[in-house]
Amino acid sequence: MKNKYVIGLDYGTNSCRSLIMKVEDGSEVASFVFPYPSGSAGVIVDNKDPNLARQNPADYIIGIETTIKGAIEKAKQNNAEFNQKDVIGIGVDTTGSSPMPVDKNGEALCFNPKFSGNPDAMCWLWKDHTSYEEAAFITETAAKIRPQYLAKIGGVYSSEWFWSKILRLKKINPEVFNAAFSFVEICDWITASLTGEKDPLKLKRSICAAGHKAMFSEEWGGLPDEEYLNTLSPGLGDLRERLYSEAYTAEQKAGNLSKEWADKLGLTTEVIVSVGAFDAHMGAVGAGITEGTLVKIIGTSTCDIMVSPVSQKLKDIPGVCGIVNGSVMNKYYGIEAGQSGVGDIFLWFVNNLVPESYGSSNGEKFQNLDKKAAELKPGESGLLALDWNNGNRTILVDVRLTGLLLGQTLHTQPHEIYRALMEATAFGALAIIDRIEEYGVKINDVINCGGLAIKSPILMQIYADIANRPMKISGSEQTPALGAGIFAAVAAGKNAGGYDSIDQAKRTMTSISKEYTPIPENVEVYKKLYKLYRQLYDSFGTENWTGKMNNVMKDLLNIRDKARGNNV
Amino acid sequence: MKNKYVIGLDYGTNSCRSLIMKVEDGSEVASFVFPYPSGSAGVIVDNKDPNLARQNPADYIIGIETTIKGAIEKAKQNNAEFNQKDVIGIGVDTTGSSPMPVDKNGEALCFNPKFSGNPDAMCWLWKDHTSYEEAAFITETAAKIRPQYLAKIGGVYSSEWFWSKILRLKKINPEVFNAAFSFVEICDWITASLTGEKDPLKLKRSICAAGHKAMFSEEWGGLPDEEYLNTLSPGLGDLRERLYSEAYTAEQKAGNLSKEWADKLGLTTEVIVSVGAFDAHMGAVGAGITEGTLVKIIGTSTCDIMVSPVSQKLKDIPGVCGIVNGSVMNKYYGIEAGQSGVGDIFLWFVNNLVPESYGSSNGEKFQNLDKKAAELKPGESGLLALDWNNGNRTILVDVRLTGLLLGQTLHTQPHEIYRALMEATAFGALAIIDRIEEYGVKINDVINCGGLAIKSPILMQIYADIANRPMKISGSEQTPALGAGIFAAVAAGKNAGGYDSIDQAKRTMTSISKEYTPIPENVEVYKKLYKLYRQLYDSFGTENWTGKMNNVMKDLLNIRDKARGNNV
Repeated sequence: MKNKYVIGLDYGTNSCRSLIMKVEDGSEVASFVFPYPSGSAGVIVDNKDPNLARQNPADYIIGIETTIKGAIEKAKQNNAEFNQKDVIGIGVDTTGSSPMPVDKNGEALCFNPKFSGNPDAMCWLWKDHTSYEEAAFITETAAKIRPQYLAKIGGVYSSEWFWSKILRLKKINPEVFNAAFSFVEICDWITASLTGEKDPLKLKRSICAAGHKAMFSEEWGGLPDEEYLNTLSPGLGDLRERLYSEAYTAEQKAGNLSKEWADKLGLTTEVIVSVGAFDAHMGAVGAGITEGTLVKIIGTSTCDIMVSPVSQKLKDIPGVCGIVNGSVMNKYYGIEAGQSGVGDIFLWFVNNLVPESYGSSNGEKFQNLDKKAAELKPGESGLLALDWNNGNRTILVDVRLTGLLLGQTLHTQPHEIYRALMEATAFGALAIIDRIEEYGVKINDVINCGGLAIKSPILMQIYADIANRPMKISGSEQTPALGAGIFAAVAAGKNAGGYDSIDQAKRTMTSISKEYTPIPENVEVYKKLYKLYRQLYDSFGTENWTGKMNNVMKDLLNIRDKARGNNV
Repeated sequence: MKNKYVIGLDYGTNSCRSLIMKVEDGSEVASFVFPYPSGSAGVIVDNKDPNLARQNPADYIIGIETTIKGAIEKAKQNNAEFNQKDVIGIGVDTTGSSPMPVDKNGEALCFNPKFSGNPDAMCWLWKDHTSYEEAAFITETAAKIRPQYLAKIGGVYSSEWFWSKILRLKKINPEVFNAAFSFVEICDWITASLTGEKDPLKLKRSICAAGHKAMFSEEWGGLPDEEYLNTLSPGLGDLRERLYSEAYTAEQKAGNLSKEWADKLGLTTEVIVSVGAFDAHMGAVGAGITEGTLVKIIGTSTCDIMVSPVSQKLKDIPGVCGIVNGSVMNKYYGIEAGQSGVGDIFLWFVNNLVPESYGSSNGEKFQNLDKKAAELKPGESGLLALDWNNGNRTILVDVRLTGLLLGQTLHTQPHEIYRALMEATAFGALAIIDRIEEYGVKINDVINCGGLAIKSPILMQIYADIANRPMKISGSEQTPALGAGIFAAVAAGKNAGGYDSIDQAKRTMTSISKEYTPIPENVEVYKKLYKLYRQLYDSFGTENWTGKMNNVMKDLLNIRDKARGNNV
């Protein structure tokens, strides 16, 4: 049988990529990356307000053409037997919640010359934190009159999410808000662009985005009710009927590739475009998620994904970002958690606080930091950090938290701080694991994917030692794009050369490349350090904590002295 | 009348200097600096133990010759009328407590080939913190059986002090301890070297060193009694009679310059060498200290000095380093407090965490950091730090404390952290001012001296804004050496062309060059930040504190948002 191909289109924070893979085994045929041309590394920022992060949707459209054409070109060069007519599906994964105001035709409002260049009319990127007050108000209002809305999202609505951003826009820029006919997550908008069906009332919305970010649930008939929305802001309820009442799992068909795009890309209109979803959720599938497996997608931030069969009862878990029927796969609850800063924190450190003695480029600096950090023993630096430079997503759901570094002396070196920051993200990861298991979801396996999981053995060893569990590494370096391809292959169906089910596609298209095993003596030291990390975490991060802090510095010094073998 | 001259010999942490000044008005004729050749910037360190800091006393002796000869040479070039035969006195100030084991002849034990190169046989520099356990034991034992010993030293004996270091040496290196006939502070040993009278039982010991660091007081007949010392360690009591029973104020004569040194330096044996003392105490006199004036000597660390007339009752002040009759001037109690890391913290930051985008040398980096930090408004960075990278001297007297930085985001810049570190040292300074005033010593005036006071206007403005008091800057850039010269001029006496009294000498030889005034809007913001600083200070630094911490990050963000003029 002739090889068939699918394309995974993956939209990240700073760039997007197309990955062409064989349906047969998921192997990569070619990929092509396009860094977004707008803003600072693809993000529109505001020097006066570090919370602001927007994107220009024009970059997404140029990205489709550039990356698919580029990948096809490379596929032809790499693989003589590759024929672009054998592409049977395209799947799309994006960041989120990244909603965008659109007009009646589904066109981005910032394409309207009236709002051109206005960040409020652009896509409000997932990491935009301007809406923290609105998020608090949404939580507070739901706690009073719709407590059921909070139960499935860990108890706290985030400033990164759909309604917070819309409410903020309504408050700070009524003109843009009033000009918006509807709002669309970019995972749906890009999919809609590919099929040509951009009408906001008709385009296929992702259950992943709807359920995790927009409080959409069958339990209460879809989106939050009009009365609740009007309590948030008079008039907001009117928007409800201009959004959506249905949402779809990602293995479903959003439509066929439009004639316009097919012509432009050299593909056929037979190509099936599957329903979009968020990168982490598709990445989890690309990593081979199954019941009892935690998939960690480790990049600028971290997403943690689990699935639990809908047939079994599942408790609400406070602090996780969401539990949504079908958000990862049909017939499973998707459980999402995450850390709002991981690779971003390391990059901030290297960009700002690492001198050239570690290297002349960031690449060299990371290499030397990794090397020197790996030579340190746990506890040896005497340092302890909190991983909150970008707030805390799970389990505190609080963007109004900040970084903390403790234990520095006059001898503290950059690679010691770097290791403390890596450890902080690992401790944060363990806090999430502990929380999920406390609520009855057993974690048998951890599979890591994303750039950092592959590039930094020392990071993964630290994760294994701190979590005291083996850390598996996904075989694919592009799990979100692979996951998008898997969904496309299922949406295209067996007759077209794809698959009948996600389970089937996953089994043949995914793999594990490596496994890190905990080192017992490190585990022992990290148990002590984790206790101190949790003391900082709970004291600075929660309202109910009360107690003493004067043990922290001394305990750290005792751990340090022991690690150094000092005679104390 | 012909001009007379005095020489101030100032021994710092990394170098020593000679300053030749006119007796008439204290004006500098010439000075010469000698960086110690041994160790790392003059300090013998141990990569395995950041607490260790020793010095090679050979450097001190070479320093006498190099700096005095160098200064005389320059004086001749600068000033045609200068004649080295008109030098009437030499005063010596040094770091401390920096004790050193010596043999029966007063010779440094490390000059004995048997102990050559052994750091334990060298000078134990003030900032050596290896003895923290011994310090705790000395405090504990005194609290039980000799509470009076603690009352004058703020309640806690420090690891930086005389007995802690001796006790540590006895524990870790009995061979060196047993070979030591006696122990001598370097302020006394250098003075003794100049007079030639090095016999440990005869050389003139400084009341400043004895009273502040060795628990020496007339109230209990000199040094701590034998029984107490034997309780610290059996046999330690035997040392008592090989130390001293008298100690002297610094305007007294230690002796005449020895024939050997007079010949070597081209001076006469008529030159009077005054009794030595610590740099900060002499610096306070060089800055023009008087009742109601706090003198801050701001360098790698900070020393705070006040005087209070012996004729008035003075309460014990918990946490200050000491209250000693005559330690600064005869007939006054000298009150000493201090911060164990100030310039050292800034230097650590620049050495380790400031990239070359701020400059290619440390000098350039400091210049740019100062410039950019000065452009920030108080609170604008959202950062808050504790100044404990080298422990906390006053008011917590605890070397087992470490640095803390809080409030960092993904946008935090080096100059923001640098400003937060400067602010932390200013908050620490205010904690000392508050403590001293709480105990009834009124502070009418603050005079700052030392390198940082002169070189960093932004630092001094921050101090003025945070303490909400004008900050005066001493006219001399070398107040310790000037102070040493003032004491030498008084020890030489009026007949030789000097002065009758310190008061008289101070009035004519010292001046104020500049004054920084608090800026009201900065004062307001810093009041809020100081409250948060004290929350961190008290919670991490004291045993009795108990409470909540979850306000800290949010309060800082609110202050930041207000400072940035954000719409919140």
